[in-house]
Amino acid sequence: MTDILTRLAALLPPAALREAGPAYLEEPRGRWQGKALAVVAPGSVAEVAAVLRLCNETGTGVIPYGGGTGLVGGQLAEDGAPPVILSLERMRAVRSFDAEAGTMVVEAGAVLADIHAVAEAEGWIFPLTLASQGSARLGGLLATNAGGVNVIRYGNARDLVLGVEAVLADGTVVNTLSPLRKDNTGYDIRHLLIGSEGTLGVITAASLRLFPKPAATGAAMMVVESPEAALALLRMAKARIGDAISAFELMGKEGFLFLDEVGPETRQPFDPRPDWVCLVDVGMGAGGDPSGALEALFAEAFEAGLVSDGVIAQSEAQRAEFWTLRENIPAANRRIGAVSSHDISVPVAAIPRFIAEAPARIGAEGQFRLNCFGHMGDGNLHYNVFPMPGKSRADHDNQRSAIKRAVHDLVQELGGSVSAEHGVGRLKVDDLERYGDPGKLVAMRAIKAALDPRGILNPGAVLRG
Amino acid sequence: MTDILTRLAALLPPAALREAGPAYLEEPRGRWQGKALAVVAPGSVAEVAAVLRLCNETGTGVIPYGGGTGLVGGQLAEDGAPPVILSLERMRAVRSFDAEAGTMVVEAGAVLADIHAVAEAEGWIFPLTLASQGSARLGGLLATNAGGVNVIRYGNARDLVLGVEAVLADGTVVNTLSPLRKDNTGYDIRHLLIGSEGTLGVITAASLRLFPKPAATGAAMMVVESPEAALALLRMAKARIGDAISAFELMGKEGFLFLDEVGPETRQPFDPRPDWVCLVDVGMGAGGDPSGALEALFAEAFEAGLVSDGVIAQSEAQRAEFWTLRENIPAANRRIGAVSSHDISVPVAAIPRFIAEAPARIGAEGQFRLNCFGHMGDGNLHYNVFPMPGKSRADHDNQRSAIKRAVHDLVQELGGSVSAEHGVGRLKVDDLERYGDPGKLVAMRAIKAALDPRGILNPGAVLRG
Repeated sequence: MTDILTRLAALLPPAALREAGPAYLEEPRGRWQGKALAVVAPGSVAEVAAVLRLCNETGTGVIPYGGGTGLVGGQLAEDGAPPVILSLERMRAVRSFDAEAGTMVVEAGAVLADIHAVAEAEGWIFPLTLASQGSARLGGLLATNAGGVNVIRYGNARDLVLGVEAVLADGTVVNTLSPLRKDNTGYDIRHLLIGSEGTLGVITAASLRLFPKPAATGAAMMVVESPEAALALLRMAKARIGDAISAFELMGKEGFLFLDEVGPETRQPFDPRPDWVCLVDVGMGAGGDPSGALEALFAEAFEAGLVSDGVIAQSEAQRAEFWTLRENIPAANRRIGAVSSHDISVPVAAIPRFIAEAPARIGAEGQFRLNCFGHMGDGNLHYNVFPMPGKSRADHDNQRSAIKRAVHDLVQELGGSVSAEHGVGRLKVDDLERYGDPGKLVAMRAIKAALDPRGILNPGAVLRG
Repeated sequence: MTDILTRLAALLPPAALREAGPAYLEEPRGRWQGKALAVVAPGSVAEVAAVLRLCNETGTGVIPYGGGTGLVGGQLAEDGAPPVILSLERMRAVRSFDAEAGTMVVEAGAVLADIHAVAEAEGWIFPLTLASQGSARLGGLLATNAGGVNVIRYGNARDLVLGVEAVLADGTVVNTLSPLRKDNTGYDIRHLLIGSEGTLGVITAASLRLFPKPAATGAAMMVVESPEAALALLRMAKARIGDAISAFELMGKEGFLFLDEVGPETRQPFDPRPDWVCLVDVGMGAGGDPSGALEALFAEAFEAGLVSDGVIAQSEAQRAEFWTLRENIPAANRRIGAVSSHDISVPVAAIPRFIAEAPARIGAEGQFRLNCFGHMGDGNLHYNVFPMPGKSRADHDNQRSAIKRAVHDLVQELGGSVSAEHGVGRLKVDDLERYGDPGKLVAMRAIKAALDPRGILNPGAVLRG
């Protein structure tokens, strides 16, 4: 062990050696505590390769580390031999920017908000947008194929990537950074690495697809009485506004009550708090009129009895306020402390059925508060189970697995996924075994064994070690 | 050998046994002649699995076979032990169609034109569009990650697929057909199989993404004096018309002369034949005015001195006529017989430089006619080298590899790809070794060995057997 520390210190410049402090070992919600043999932050692909060669040779586990914002324990190991944490934080350069083609090559340690800023300075956007963008780093976002609020329009993280540079377990550097639109020369290693959660290789850089910045944007919050009405509103919005819909979010009453409970500073437009609200965000090209389109949508939906109240943002500041409200819901959840959180997806049309049936399944375990919100346009809900007032998460520790099982069984019955956008990490390894396609698992295990025969890359994540 | 034939006959119903006739053994341009131990056409996934299990057990090569339209020899083997040809032609069912979500699950043997018809009957489109769509089958299109004319708007074949069902070499069935927009449960086997040209598994069905049928379409042919002007026109079109551009094709004079030479029945709008023509196709939603947009584009481009002449389709029939002209160019090429054909891509901005420099590189080998056309909007050209009048392809047999090398070296210098949309097949195995990223090749070989340890799947394609 010390031998490895000595060898790491010999391989790397002093700036690459880090203290194994809490920043690398604590789960963002404080749920788990990781272990580390060492934390290293290489400054180049060659240094990443050197670290991996050493760890592969010595059979030392390596956890590739981004911003540490993951919610499924993919970035920290409680069990097993302490791993080397390989942080990409020092590799955050924008290697190139093609302002004409709308592509950029960025290193994996770049923080998402910084990537946004670089793209916007040139009149483009990189549309991956999620609550943790101020700290999440590109490598982790790609390793987990992150989703977020704009998937309905722009796709998941993988859809925004033209190529990657990565280092395999044995130190082999794979470079597919070419930003060509068409390149059919061999297997798509890019998509294999994206979403593999650091278990097949360490992504060190990526070519990103940028999109024209919408010239005109708008947003509205519309009150609907039920998930069925929300679904009908989504259909109506798609028919009227089509591809210009950048996000279609659903928020349930419990979330608004949580905001009142933990952070009365969040301004809420509706009083009393409504059962369900849809947040519709629209971006259009020059000459487009998002607010006009949202007003027309509201009028038609009101006429049809789908919506009972609504606010259309009158300024960019008000639009930002709507989004702050939306982003404050997960923050409030964190303060209250969920018994169990579920990042699930079902076919969009099945969302009302999921929302209708889940409470009874969970109710078999006792009384809980349910906060349901998420990316309705993609069929992706964050369905979180909270203790009743006066109780705490710890009071329900022995029920957690039964609750998860109840929710995931229902998801499976509806043809959904038990991990829509957060990944498998260590938290859902059992779920993958239970609900995953057996043939896919066979293929996954064969690929893992081929690319990481000693099992050093993020051991215990995704697949049992 | 006969033992395998007997065992195949015992495994499969009589309807699944086919004569190993020329339809399965001839390259579409008559360039190569394949061999076959047997041709089987299973009627179900279970039958595909049974065939693969047997072939894996006995170490018999298998070529998964679609419409036989591939241009890089991926579907036929001249050398090595005769393989079993596994045709998907009997598996062409539409298993399900979700008219609301815009998804369909289709078996791999379905012909692309039939898929188009099914989608359009429900008001949707499946936008993959290419010359061979009347015979190309879904499985082959996905195995080669086919491109075609609409990539600029809708992406390559892989971008149109939500999930696949496939059978691995050992008969394991992998099912990731779920059409969920968000599903982060494990490695993306779908994208690994798409583009692997039948060397990692046999795709038996896929969930396809459909798109709303544009309510209004239009097309124009515009005469430009140079590739530089074509590039400037593309930029202007993107700025004016944006995402509504469905295709942006470039055609060179030689192609028009070929049409005159082999098929005077093709109506051509410009006389004398111009040096370069751009075909711009536009699709818009309800209320859009594609012809108006094209007229405005033409006016601005004329004003700027970029275009000197043009025709805007006055009807759907005239738009179809433009496309017939475009599609007749590869047909004319086939009749004249290329010395060498190149399906290359470069960064879009490098297209003029490629077109300017390629003739001198090829000219070092002698005098040739060059027909350059293709999907300019994606940086993808079909750059084909023909004998001078009075000479034939056979007269240049000994120069072919030097010509290919000259073209591909230039492509490599410009950061391009030696196979943009046709794949590697058997024709470009050497090119992949020469020009491919060495690290990517390491990963590819490891994955191939893991998923097909006996090397039975399309042996000799993509990677040397």
